[in-house]
Amino acid sequence: MNALEKLFIRIVQRVNINLRELEFDAKPYVWDLIPKEQMKKFYAFYGISPDHPLNLQFKNSGLAGSYFLGQCRVTNSLLYKTDVRGDELKKKGDRFQYNNLTIPVSKDEEIVIEDSAFVKTLIHNYSHDPETLEKFFIKDTISTHYANIHGSPSDGCFLGPFSTVDLTTMRDCVIGTFSYIQAGEISHLNIDPGTVWVRSPGSFNFLYRYPIDQLNTYIYFKAGIQPQGKFIDFVEDRKEAFQRIFDLVNIDPVPVPDSSSLDRYAVIKPKTEIGENVLISQRAYLQNSTLGKGANAQENCFIINSKLEGNNVTAHGAKIIESDLGKNVFVGFNSFLRGRPECRLKIGRESIIMPHTIIDISKPLTIPAGQLVWGLITDEKDLETNSISINSMSKIDNRLTKGNMFFEGSGKSFVSAFQDRIQHILEANGAFFNCTKKKGHQKGQQKELQKGHAQKNQNMSINTIQPYPRGKLEGLYPTISIKP
Amino acid sequence: MNALEKLFIRIVQRVNINLRELEFDAKPYVWDLIPKEQMKKFYAFYGISPDHPLNLQFKNSGLAGSYFLGQCRVTNSLLYKTDVRGDELKKKGDRFQYNNLTIPVSKDEEIVIEDSAFVKTLIHNYSHDPETLEKFFIKDTISTHYANIHGSPSDGCFLGPFSTVDLTTMRDCVIGTFSYIQAGEISHLNIDPGTVWVRSPGSFNFLYRYPIDQLNTYIYFKAGIQPQGKFIDFVEDRKEAFQRIFDLVNIDPVPVPDSSSLDRYAVIKPKTEIGENVLISQRAYLQNSTLGKGANAQENCFIINSKLEGNNVTAHGAKIIESDLGKNVFVGFNSFLRGRPECRLKIGRESIIMPHTIIDISKPLTIPAGQLVWGLITDEKDLETNSISINSMSKIDNRLTKGNMFFEGSGKSFVSAFQDRIQHILEANGAFFNCTKKKGHQKGQQKELQKGHAQKNQNMSINTIQPYPRGKLEGLYPTISIKP
Repeated sequence: MNALEKLFIRIVQRVNINLRELEFDAKPYVWDLIPKEQMKKFYAFYGISPDHPLNLQFKNSGLAGSYFLGQCRVTNSLLYKTDVRGDELKKKGDRFQYNNLTIPVSKDEEIVIEDSAFVKTLIHNYSHDPETLEKFFIKDTISTHYANIHGSPSDGCFLGPFSTVDLTTMRDCVIGTFSYIQAGEISHLNIDPGTVWVRSPGSFNFLYRYPIDQLNTYIYFKAGIQPQGKFIDFVEDRKEAFQRIFDLVNIDPVPVPDSSSLDRYAVIKPKTEIGENVLISQRAYLQNSTLGKGANAQENCFIINSKLEGNNVTAHGAKIIESDLGKNVFVGFNSFLRGRPECRLKIGRESIIMPHTIIDISKPLTIPAGQLVWGLITDEKDLETNSISINSMSKIDNRLTKGNMFFEGSGKSFVSAFQDRIQHILEANGAFFNCTKKKGHQKGQQKELQKGHAQKNQNMSINTIQPYPRGKLEGLYPTISIKP
Repeated sequence: MNALEKLFIRIVQRVNINLRELEFDAKPYVWDLIPKEQMKKFYAFYGISPDHPLNLQFKNSGLAGSYFLGQCRVTNSLLYKTDVRGDELKKKGDRFQYNNLTIPVSKDEEIVIEDSAFVKTLIHNYSHDPETLEKFFIKDTISTHYANIHGSPSDGCFLGPFSTVDLTTMRDCVIGTFSYIQAGEISHLNIDPGTVWVRSPGSFNFLYRYPIDQLNTYIYFKAGIQPQGKFIDFVEDRKEAFQRIFDLVNIDPVPVPDSSSLDRYAVIKPKTEIGENVLISQRAYLQNSTLGKGANAQENCFIINSKLEGNNVTAHGAKIIESDLGKNVFVGFNSFLRGRPECRLKIGRESIIMPHTIIDISKPLTIPAGQLVWGLITDEKDLETNSISINSMSKIDNRLTKGNMFFEGSGKSFVSAFQDRIQHILEANGAFFNCTKKKGHQKGQQKELQKGHAQKNQNMSINTIQPYPRGKLEGLYPTISIKP
């Protein structure tokens, strides 16, 4: 057994110890998921630019195919084709607001990954836990295909495929396949597959559960098998297009406006049009689509034969096929929106497609403007059950049950929480960047220009690193530290 | 002025201060040599394998196109397409023999580069200075195209194009274009172009000077111009072939025997045959040639339309064209051996072509076996003047003058010094590796197999690093540390 296998066994043991109360054994789920032979074949990479913080440290870890940006420390861990973006972390001197408390941040925040293993996982944002402002920790945690760990410190957890934990601190939890959790703080929970849970303690609680049989056709996972279903088929079918961009040192650049950025590890197929202030992240896939001003296409998203009018958020892992989206439409994490050439999906402006929504139609479908949409939708009838106008939602102040969805609390708070966040995402991504500087502007006024990722990620240097190719450390990377 | 230009000015100033007694101003020589615009375009790279020491540290430096292996610290320096191979350094616990003194090495040796600038320079081997066993330092030094700094600590020096300093500690010296210096310890010398000087104090002294007019047609350099002449034309003509290997992440491997290694950044053109125990280093160029068992092709060498029978050393920067070399022929640093299709150059077995030899013929020429050869040779007559049989040389015990060459001291010592060293180079490169393990061999007996670079450099991981692409640090690299 080589050092990489020993390390993997050690990680599995640590996760199992944490999850002993739930009687969960991670080993049969993941033993074949991390392809130990391939861990030595793929290079990892990291970005450098003057607009990003830089502090990367790797120790006794395998990093095959993974991408790093910003500030991140990785120790005793295995990362397979995983993206770690420490570019939205808090800085020393920032002030963190929690209810009526203003807490100063005492040092630059870091993402600290220890004793963990990830497969094709996205790690992004910053720790939203006021208890751990300077350290976005992820330890003793295993995460599987296309999971998102977003602003969520984690200790002793297991995440199923296509699951998302968002702005939530979790300890000793199992997050089921395709579940979305945004719940503040959770511990010792075993979340069923297909759960969509958005909670703000004391304010609101939103809960939806996918019909499990139908979910299984999209994504199914159990011990001893690889994840399978339509989601996996969909990404596997497009895998080859990524091969080319990883094989070349320099790829022919696709022209984008000066105010936009296109990551060198994104796939852009003809005929794609990219507007101003657009961010296209690594591992995004665009084909025959139009992205209007201020739209963004985040990691692992796919936008195919579609038109996005502008200021659209396509969150990590979202897929948009044969669809027309009005301005300011938000599509949340890992959502799967599939229109067909003969029956397109149309979504009116300012609608919110909640994270982990599946819209898969065989007749044309139009979602009106200003609608809140969740769950599984295959036709008009499902849409009626699994959506509500944002206006009506704002008026709920007690509870609401629709189909598999249960809501209690303040609809107004729920809607504002979403809207504020969408506004923040657009800002952070540079959607509102204004490049026409007025004369006489002073340094302090530069901020008005609202530079975001779309502008900061331009012309980034991408560096590659590789593991020991042979010997007892085969597949592991040397100790590497990169600072400004 | 950006940080890179400021750094360059600072380096030039430091070199000039050291060379003030020689009234040497490095600035007009080098200001345009380091292409400041290109410093941000090229990536640098380093090798990782279980068979090499690993300790690389880069700080406030530009590294465009440079390659690193082993142990090396670079601070406040500009390295352009330079190779630093810290893979032959001394280890803690080694014992260094100097005359009748045995000095223990107290810690792992490092190559320490500070406040220096190099263009296409090769840095290799270990400090041969008993005063500085653990630190192969190169500080306040500027080195130009295809110079070699080989086992030679340097403080406050300037090296002209195609010059070599070998096993020599130098302080405050200018080394002229195409000069070769192997002289123990030198200081405050301004060495004329085309000087070949091999000295072992108390034992022998060999001195040859190129006729300057003829040398100038091969390589000419003065303040304010780029180096020019046949050497430059020769390498420029073959530049494009290297482009491709730097543009691809993975190149189609050329098959080599299990006991040989071919660097991923070497150019191999058809129809090249590579025997067993052969080492081909990065930036070597092979075309339509045969390398017999145990031959090696070191950095920046070119072997074209030639046949090398086996155990041949082709040292850093040597060029062999349209030639047939018998077994154990040694071709020293930066030598230029040009036969023609209609008049090949033949060199008999065990001949020693001294470093910085130019053989450029327009009629067939045969050098007999066991000959020692130096200087400029264009025909039979030159060969007679600029060579002697090794046997005869061994019998010299006073002095010898032949053409532009002057020798005094013990010919026997001179010849053994060369022969011992050639033997050592072949050993270090793995020419004598024996892969047939006998049964019952114990661990201690592994050494008999004589693994060298040819075996250790197989399947090395090559990692790339890039500089800041924009901003005030444009062209400079972040602080990077890589350890096991």
